[in-house]
Amino acid sequence: MHPVPVQAVHLGDGFWTPRRKVVTERSLPATLAALEEHGIVDNFRRLSGKPELPRKGSISSDADVYKWIEAAAWALASNETSDSDKQKLRGDIDSLTNTILAAQEPGGYLNTYFVGDRLHLRLTDLVHSNEDYCLAEFIEAGIAYYRATGNRRLLDAGIRFADYILANFGPGRKPFITGHPALEMALIELYRTTAQAKYLDFTRYLYSGVERDRLKLKDSDIRFTFSGRPFTSRTELEGHAVRALYASAGATDFFTETGEPAYKRTLDLLWTDLTARKMYITGSVGSRSSGESMGEDYELPPEQPSSESCPAIVAASANVMWNFRMLTLTGDSRYADVLERALYNAVNSGISINGNPSCPPNLERLFESLPGYLYATSRDDIYINLYQESKLNWHLEDGSPLSLSQSTAYPWNGDVKITVQPAKPAAFTVYLRWPGWAASADASVNGKPISPAARRGSFIPLTRTWNPGDVISLSLPMPVTPMSANPRVADDYGRVAMQRGPLVYALEQPDNPGVSISDLFFRSATVPAPEVRRDLLGGITVLKVSGLAAEKSLVDEPLYQPLSVAQARPKRNVSLTFIPYYTVGNRDQAGQPAPMEVWVPITRPDASDIAPLAFGGIVNHKAPPRVQ
Amino acid sequence: MHPVPVQAVHLGDGFWTPRRKVVTERSLPATLAALEEHGIVDNFRRLSGKPELPRKGSISSDADVYKWIEAAAWALASNETSDSDKQKLRGDIDSLTNTILAAQEPGGYLNTYFVGDRLHLRLTDLVHSNEDYCLAEFIEAGIAYYRATGNRRLLDAGIRFADYILANFGPGRKPFITGHPALEMALIELYRTTAQAKYLDFTRYLYSGVERDRLKLKDSDIRFTFSGRPFTSRTELEGHAVRALYASAGATDFFTETGEPAYKRTLDLLWTDLTARKMYITGSVGSRSSGESMGEDYELPPEQPSSESCPAIVAASANVMWNFRMLTLTGDSRYADVLERALYNAVNSGISINGNPSCPPNLERLFESLPGYLYATSRDDIYINLYQESKLNWHLEDGSPLSLSQSTAYPWNGDVKITVQPAKPAAFTVYLRWPGWAASADASVNGKPISPAARRGSFIPLTRTWNPGDVISLSLPMPVTPMSANPRVADDYGRVAMQRGPLVYALEQPDNPGVSISDLFFRSATVPAPEVRRDLLGGITVLKVSGLAAEKSLVDEPLYQPLSVAQARPKRNVSLTFIPYYTVGNRDQAGQPAPMEVWVPITRPDASDIAPLAFGGIVNHKAPPRVQ
Repeated sequence: MHPVPVQAVHLGDGFWTPRRKVVTERSLPATLAALEEHGIVDNFRRLSGKPELPRKGSISSDADVYKWIEAAAWALASNETSDSDKQKLRGDIDSLTNTILAAQEPGGYLNTYFVGDRLHLRLTDLVHSNEDYCLAEFIEAGIAYYRATGNRRLLDAGIRFADYILANFGPGRKPFITGHPALEMALIELYRTTAQAKYLDFTRYLYSGVERDRLKLKDSDIRFTFSGRPFTSRTELEGHAVRALYASAGATDFFTETGEPAYKRTLDLLWTDLTARKMYITGSVGSRSSGESMGEDYELPPEQPSSESCPAIVAASANVMWNFRMLTLTGDSRYADVLERALYNAVNSGISINGNPSCPPNLERLFESLPGYLYATSRDDIYINLYQESKLNWHLEDGSPLSLSQSTAYPWNGDVKITVQPAKPAAFTVYLRWPGWAASADASVNGKPISPAARRGSFIPLTRTWNPGDVISLSLPMPVTPMSANPRVADDYGRVAMQRGPLVYALEQPDNPGVSISDLFFRSATVPAPEVRRDLLGGITVLKVSGLAAEKSLVDEPLYQPLSVAQARPKRNVSLTFIPYYTVGNRDQAGQPAPMEVWVPITRPDASDIAPLAFGGIVNHKAPPRVQ
Repeated sequence: MHPVPVQAVHLGDGFWTPRRKVVTERSLPATLAALEEHGIVDNFRRLSGKPELPRKGSISSDADVYKWIEAAAWALASNETSDSDKQKLRGDIDSLTNTILAAQEPGGYLNTYFVGDRLHLRLTDLVHSNEDYCLAEFIEAGIAYYRATGNRRLLDAGIRFADYILANFGPGRKPFITGHPALEMALIELYRTTAQAKYLDFTRYLYSGVERDRLKLKDSDIRFTFSGRPFTSRTELEGHAVRALYASAGATDFFTETGEPAYKRTLDLLWTDLTARKMYITGSVGSRSSGESMGEDYELPPEQPSSESCPAIVAASANVMWNFRMLTLTGDSRYADVLERALYNAVNSGISINGNPSCPPNLERLFESLPGYLYATSRDDIYINLYQESKLNWHLEDGSPLSLSQSTAYPWNGDVKITVQPAKPAAFTVYLRWPGWAASADASVNGKPISPAARRGSFIPLTRTWNPGDVISLSLPMPVTPMSANPRVADDYGRVAMQRGPLVYALEQPDNPGVSISDLFFRSATVPAPEVRRDLLGGITVLKVSGLAAEKSLVDEPLYQPLSVAQARPKRNVSLTFIPYYTVGNRDQAGQPAPMEVWVPITRPDASDIAPLAFGGIVNHKAPPRVQ
């Protein structure tokens, strides 16, 4: 499978359009202003004529400038960005490029932290220095801008730094390790862009994990960085979540280029570990705030409001990146299912309805590159990965031009109409994704039903001679589905999370006034009803669910009491309103995130549910005699 | 209420007797040997003629020597310790005392860490140095040994160090703070022992929290140490669990001595915060391994095996210490309920059946001082706090001699026989504790039933003229009670923990072979049956409970799936065997702690429980047409 470029896709008036628009028009300028305000761009200027400026920001702050450029480059490539915005973005990128190039040393090295008093520390503490990470983002920014515009200036600068590393480190030279494994992805992208095998070879060296002894790596470093031992010896995800997922995404690229089978075996193990034991239902990852790290198997404590959980959201975007690579590699729709879950929920929650990003510029680059995720080609086939009002102007891999247009209100409903426009009648296969969450998939071509030769969670192949104007209709049922977690997830047992289509829902306090959402229960024999609310949170479908509220707040209940007493707890009927998880956190209360809950406890409305239970005991005691 | 001394109590052949015996005979010698082996005692010797020895152990390792002496002193005071053991212990303490005194500086200061190169750091970083904490344990050890033997040598040495602090720090002198607030308890005990008000005054200064500015304390320090701001401004427990509980125990002592009402108001708030929101059902405290700290309200992730959770067990012993003080202060039995919960479960789990302590010497001193917890006096009354085969030889507060003997198999059953032996017939009140877990309490005197003028969770007053040989009988029913947690505890919802009498139970893998305990469910309409097993784990009562096991391990189930699918999960009937929580962790498997679980998920055996539920949706879809 081969992704199509961002430039080939026009987004219509669909779900992602306003989300992307707000990123382009609000987030990108706001983030650049913040980078200027906090002196992050000045860090480069102080190396090129303004030595009086102080070094500001974190050790890895250079990467934020590069990531912003990458996001802006994707915006430049996009058909949805207005000409005036493009002009502005191009000017900003050119200006930043000038600043960056002026700061770069003749030998290629560039990092604004390891200068002056810290010059002697340069590339000496690779586990913690983030120099590798900053270089990776430098390369990615250069490639994105080159792909968007054909301009190689920034790309060539990144190559100079990469070549400096390759000249000085590696087998027979000084030892290297990625303390934040993003360089692997970047080097393979550089290999693809330049066709120079040395970048692929260096990536093989990085994944070989042979420098443990030379670098005296500690076990805790090897765990935290997800680096430093052979990638193919890994059997589970651990350590820093973003690092583990970036390493896995890069290893997928490496396998795609080399086909070395041990990598695929490891990737399959790690992917199962993630999706069967360590991923939130929203697709976010990293259950421990301490160290922003993966937890143990099934350790998934309640998700925090997005404003408090930036690392988990960045990890969710890494999850999207990895699964897109696995999808492209295999054509297996289960990766699209995970990608969709992470994208529509956790990642989507990271940008507010007004465009205030929680995690700039990480999410901005994902939102801006989103058109490139919708379609893919493979030999003479075309894949539809995600459903979104859009138009594709591209070609099959044999070069024959092909347009496709999708008309859909997805994810608000599951009806999709696709018009196929080959330049002339041609035989090929259109692969329609049947999401794993959909119990059935009604497909028809020109009104004639098709029996899908596929099962849920796979692509439906529609093979025929396509004529211009042929219309595919797809209908995916979207009942509200109360989801349960594996009982081994202690935090979620006895609870449900509402899902409808790809969207996970949540209770948030503002929609449920008068009672704390922590005092609410879901009635299991209930029929949740969706309700369209164009006025709310940018236009959403809410869910109305009949529930129960504890008559007396649970705050006033003992911490522990006999089950029989707890089951007799008086409750009253209430209506619960769920909103899509991605819209949670847009209505702070008194400056605090409003309370929210994804997993709501179940209670049964039937009498048997609350009848006290009888228990026997070893002591054959009688009732107290009540004798005076 | 006034506690009785350890010396006044003889333990008979009851529950705690073998537990204490193993501590005296195995743990104490093993811990002293470990202190020698790891160079912790040598740290003192290097200051008195053996400068060639290296400084070893943690910054606070001196405290371990002092705590060992305190534990050994309680063992010396105990009627259960054999004469030969006493002789050995006395020799060990005297030898350690010689070593300690030889290391103490003429001015009184003594800390084996802050010498030599670190001398200039002495008492400069009170937040982290633990000098205050080591001093506190120094004082406590001296007092315990003095009370056990009348020997003042170690006590006087502790006083010299305390006086050094008082002479140099405080209002108008250098600022002081307790970075690990144990010194408050120690100074009040010193005030009680010496009747010198200056120790009480310095404690008032410590709790006043006025040195924030002079010491430039950070908010995070003030939170973590539970020190550094006025104690009476606290409204919740936070930070390091043991520090927060020690500070609260000391503040209870302070209120007992001064009656300053703001302290009682704060203590009530903190106690409610602990028992309503932050305490495990086993009485352990400190739900975050990171920083050994308190979690947020209702943040109580699954308890770890005791070998992995030493800080939580030490916090449980601090919980016992605080609640004993609150009980003594108020005579309110609810504090005895919490004390009993923490003592029989979490604290008790800290010493293995063979006497291998998880957390020496913290638990050793609690076990050794345990006889002092059973009884208390108040004016002309006598309180029975805990039920245990034992004999009290003491006197009422008017000086009239009184013996009491308890005969009981508590906590294995709830029948207690108490023989009252006043020197001559006398009118006074015997207060019998009616534990909060007991639904009823049948009391009789000389066979004649008494209608208890009390409710559960309080003391039953038995007021009369007592004749020598009068017999009180008490019967507390002990059915097995499935307990539920407040639904706000996300980790415990939909689960039960078994409790019988004061004992909390757990599933441990070795008793439930053939199926992973994480694949087991509790059937709510079941009747748990106790079964006496004298052969198992030192002699226990196990619980046999009918349950269900997932036919296919949950490991092979998806992480998330529709509730209706999860509810249709095939299960088979199994018998579950629960053991007392305190005996968990005695049967490692392949060097690893055996898997265990306190909170077991509930499932309903009735058909309605597993019938798939019907859910409607917004999409009015029909079944797939299945047209070719």
